[in-house]
Amino acid sequence: MAHLSDIEIASKAEMKPIEEVAATLGIEKDELDMYGKYKAKLNVNQLKKLENEPDGKLILVTAITPTPAGEGKTTTSVGLADAFTKIGKKAVLAVREPSLGPVFGVKGGAAGGGYAQVVPMEDINLHFTGDFHAIGAANNLLAAMLDNHIHHGNALGIDSRKITWKRVVDMNDRQLRHIVNGLQGRVNGVPREDGYDITVASEIMAVLCLANDITELKDKLRQMIVAYTFEGEPVTAGDLKAEGALTALLKDAIHPNIVQTLEHTPALIHGGPFANIAHGCNSVLATKMGLKYADYVITEGGFGADLGAEKFIDIKCRLADLKPSAVVLVATIRALKMHGGIPKKELGPENVEAVLKGLPNLEKHLENIQDVYGLPVVVAINKFPTDTDAELEAVYKACQERGVDVVLSDVWGKGGEGGVELAEKVAELAEKENNFSFVYDEEDSIEEKLNKIVQKVYGGKGVELTKAARKELTELERLGFGNYPICMAKTQYSFSDDATLVGRPTDFTITIRNLKVSAGAGFIVALTGAVMTMPGLPKVPAAEKIDVDESGVITGLF
Amino acid sequence: MAHLSDIEIASKAEMKPIEEVAATLGIEKDELDMYGKYKAKLNVNQLKKLENEPDGKLILVTAITPTPAGEGKTTTSVGLADAFTKIGKKAVLAVREPSLGPVFGVKGGAAGGGYAQVVPMEDINLHFTGDFHAIGAANNLLAAMLDNHIHHGNALGIDSRKITWKRVVDMNDRQLRHIVNGLQGRVNGVPREDGYDITVASEIMAVLCLANDITELKDKLRQMIVAYTFEGEPVTAGDLKAEGALTALLKDAIHPNIVQTLEHTPALIHGGPFANIAHGCNSVLATKMGLKYADYVITEGGFGADLGAEKFIDIKCRLADLKPSAVVLVATIRALKMHGGIPKKELGPENVEAVLKGLPNLEKHLENIQDVYGLPVVVAINKFPTDTDAELEAVYKACQERGVDVVLSDVWGKGGEGGVELAEKVAELAEKENNFSFVYDEEDSIEEKLNKIVQKVYGGKGVELTKAARKELTELERLGFGNYPICMAKTQYSFSDDATLVGRPTDFTITIRNLKVSAGAGFIVALTGAVMTMPGLPKVPAAEKIDVDESGVITGLF
Repeated sequence: MAHLSDIEIASKAEMKPIEEVAATLGIEKDELDMYGKYKAKLNVNQLKKLENEPDGKLILVTAITPTPAGEGKTTTSVGLADAFTKIGKKAVLAVREPSLGPVFGVKGGAAGGGYAQVVPMEDINLHFTGDFHAIGAANNLLAAMLDNHIHHGNALGIDSRKITWKRVVDMNDRQLRHIVNGLQGRVNGVPREDGYDITVASEIMAVLCLANDITELKDKLRQMIVAYTFEGEPVTAGDLKAEGALTALLKDAIHPNIVQTLEHTPALIHGGPFANIAHGCNSVLATKMGLKYADYVITEGGFGADLGAEKFIDIKCRLADLKPSAVVLVATIRALKMHGGIPKKELGPENVEAVLKGLPNLEKHLENIQDVYGLPVVVAINKFPTDTDAELEAVYKACQERGVDVVLSDVWGKGGEGGVELAEKVAELAEKENNFSFVYDEEDSIEEKLNKIVQKVYGGKGVELTKAARKELTELERLGFGNYPICMAKTQYSFSDDATLVGRPTDFTITIRNLKVSAGAGFIVALTGAVMTMPGLPKVPAAEKIDVDESGVITGLF
Repeated sequence: MAHLSDIEIASKAEMKPIEEVAATLGIEKDELDMYGKYKAKLNVNQLKKLENEPDGKLILVTAITPTPAGEGKTTTSVGLADAFTKIGKKAVLAVREPSLGPVFGVKGGAAGGGYAQVVPMEDINLHFTGDFHAIGAANNLLAAMLDNHIHHGNALGIDSRKITWKRVVDMNDRQLRHIVNGLQGRVNGVPREDGYDITVASEIMAVLCLANDITELKDKLRQMIVAYTFEGEPVTAGDLKAEGALTALLKDAIHPNIVQTLEHTPALIHGGPFANIAHGCNSVLATKMGLKYADYVITEGGFGADLGAEKFIDIKCRLADLKPSAVVLVATIRALKMHGGIPKKELGPENVEAVLKGLPNLEKHLENIQDVYGLPVVVAINKFPTDTDAELEAVYKACQERGVDVVLSDVWGKGGEGGVELAEKVAELAEKENNFSFVYDEEDSIEEKLNKIVQKVYGGKGVELTKAARKELTELERLGFGNYPICMAKTQYSFSDDATLVGRPTDFTITIRNLKVSAGAGFIVALTGAVMTMPGLPKVPAAEKIDVDESGVITGLF
């Protein structure tokens, strides 16, 4: 069975009508707006009506520092939700929407794998319910209004060399990274340097994901900074009178999408902010609605627990007043071996020594979750056929010493059945009192916040700010953004800012090259290196293999 | 009643669930994919099952040469469909989808007016069911694959100065008309001149609208020319192996959308090709499905009958094997006065002489419809409060002399009730035998086709080709496109290529400045002047007035 490809498994799935799936959570049909038979939007206005209902438990799935060996965080999340359903609990999955761009690049698909997938996978991976297109349209309307303002006389005094708002497209298109536009004379705009990001990197994506309701959405959109004047003062979307039209474009996108797993567990898939220049979590509204309807909401953050979990806690939970109940830390034996210094092609044979050498990475993440974030945690080993008993034993032993349970998970091969033990353990942990804490306080200075993240979470000595970063820091404090939380843009491959330092590096400092405020989303991005916000296609793009037959069936998508 | 604004009337409308509306045509629920409660997609695969069912009558609504006074073609089409329903006939409206761009510009809305509108108007005018976004994504994927091909070594030998494929965005954004991209070094693409069109100008829009099924869609996509090699040979989407992925992106967009009029008449709103560089009609599939389900399909073509009707006949009907049964020519007294030389602000007072002076414009269109296209026609006067009996009498008399009936239509003020006489007349005409003819034969040379259009339809002496056009003509014949139909890109404000020549100009020639093949869509565009394929926003864009309240209700959209 498990030898079928993801798309083969997905296409054999018998989906239930989405209203039946929603009904298992007590969601009635008139709360849904259908998009075909298997996708719907769940009306956010229901949230007001449910205000006084108790909340379920919020479970965060995160992972050790990623390696090319893969961890299976999304697959584990999907399988865990199914496992909860299997043991008779009302559970819902709450994860991000995939971006269209990568689907045509190397390999798309952000819908889990094996027997732990969300469906209909083609739809989820292509246009889904149009949220990303709506975000792209809103982003590009704002850009058009900005350039139009300059074209018609520039009453606001915008310095066209200090425009921070880029256009976006949901496509991997390196050709658009750096452009000059407004060429060929005065009727065709004002020449300036410009560039494109992929849609998920738009601040509007982060805004949509952090808004608690439609009024706050409009408010955050209004505050977004698009440029600076010749005097250095910020120009916002509100100054361009754009927030109403942008909100109109997002009127459907704000409602969370509901689909199902292969085992018919409801899945809220909504929003997809970049995990480096944004916070990388699904929408606040989807999470909050999930908590009203289900006993357990399974969610995840991008990258490893140093990045995704930290931003989930310090940005999403802080801004939305959410409190997680337990954490699942996903690891694979293969990835631990890579942290132990073994190259990818030598991961096959048993190597307990490499596992032991890689374990400090896992241990540091456990320390962070327990001692810094103050949350109960269980380690889920995402099972591979090459794992040996001795290798697993090494992990068990190390975790036992910290009082942490390790559970073997085989949701990829068996679906929810393969995650029952994990679900039972998580349910047990979620009942415990916890000492949930943020890494820093809002009132800390920007530099204090940065140092706390580096010292407490990354295990480094602290931050060093470049001259440019220090200048920007002073400017951001002057403009009143000093108490915004921090969004670290750092390599996901190391606790440090050097991607080659796997395992648990020590004695390092993190260089903050620059700072940038996302004034609408409500955080300050700390840039530690060059961040790629527009991917490119490989020499042979996946797009070349995709096909559709005469009845509309897609092949080659993954 | 009629003093309410369009959006006020629309927002007071009580819509029926779309499955109830579809059921009036015998469409069953499982043929529909719902997009919320009031929009659905009608599965094209049904068309095969209905192959042997008889077709209804196809009614084309067209107009005299447009003036700033307005004619009300779409309003008349909507009202006529309602009037057919009112007299107990099964009717369906089949028109184009509006573009998002203009909504934020001067004034959007392409959903009729007054009491003859399609609803839900906000949705139809914003993202609707995502068709335009899908077309944009497909267009831009092809662009990304093209530049990616060059970036990775340019095995096809594409001359980057001869790339004809532009990127698109569904936005009025003049800043993007002329750009340089691929800047800042070898990892960021290859520098070249480029530019954006608005999405409706994409050849993919025309392809989607002219495809008879999904196989033909893929085939047409494959044939689209994106560039030329250094040797001058065409490079197609097929050469880039893109057609499968493009088709995958269009898998939902190919299904026609069904909504309703204010009076619950079913409306198929699907596709929106540019009316100048493309053929300007709704999709072939929507029209064909309408003909299977209804007794009368009311459709329209862009601009006046010289352009829209000619392309409807010579491109759409020719490529899709459609045969219209009758034509409605829409006119207003005000527009006739403008053709009689009266400026817009002096249209109020009675001026029979001006009407008489403007009538030759209407008469030439009637001659074309009757004698060139060989179709029965009725004139619909779209009623305005300032029209006087004497002015109307002048029109009646002139038409009577040609044996053409004139009907006063007040669907704007009264909905279907105001169009009953028109519907009865149209039904009568549609029963007549007709001599439906194309303006030219496929076998005619390109120059013969051009001359026939100018001489027979425009009433001019013939065409003159510039040197560039003549060179391109030779090249297109060499490449085997000689028997493609012609898509004239000419000002809509005159029969001639001079927008200031209103009424019925004579003794003119049309200068063909250049020719361009749309090899996938299947026609040759004849350019008679500069065509604007990317609009700009005005000094105060409509976007500034648009707002959304806390429960998601949109205001200021129109």
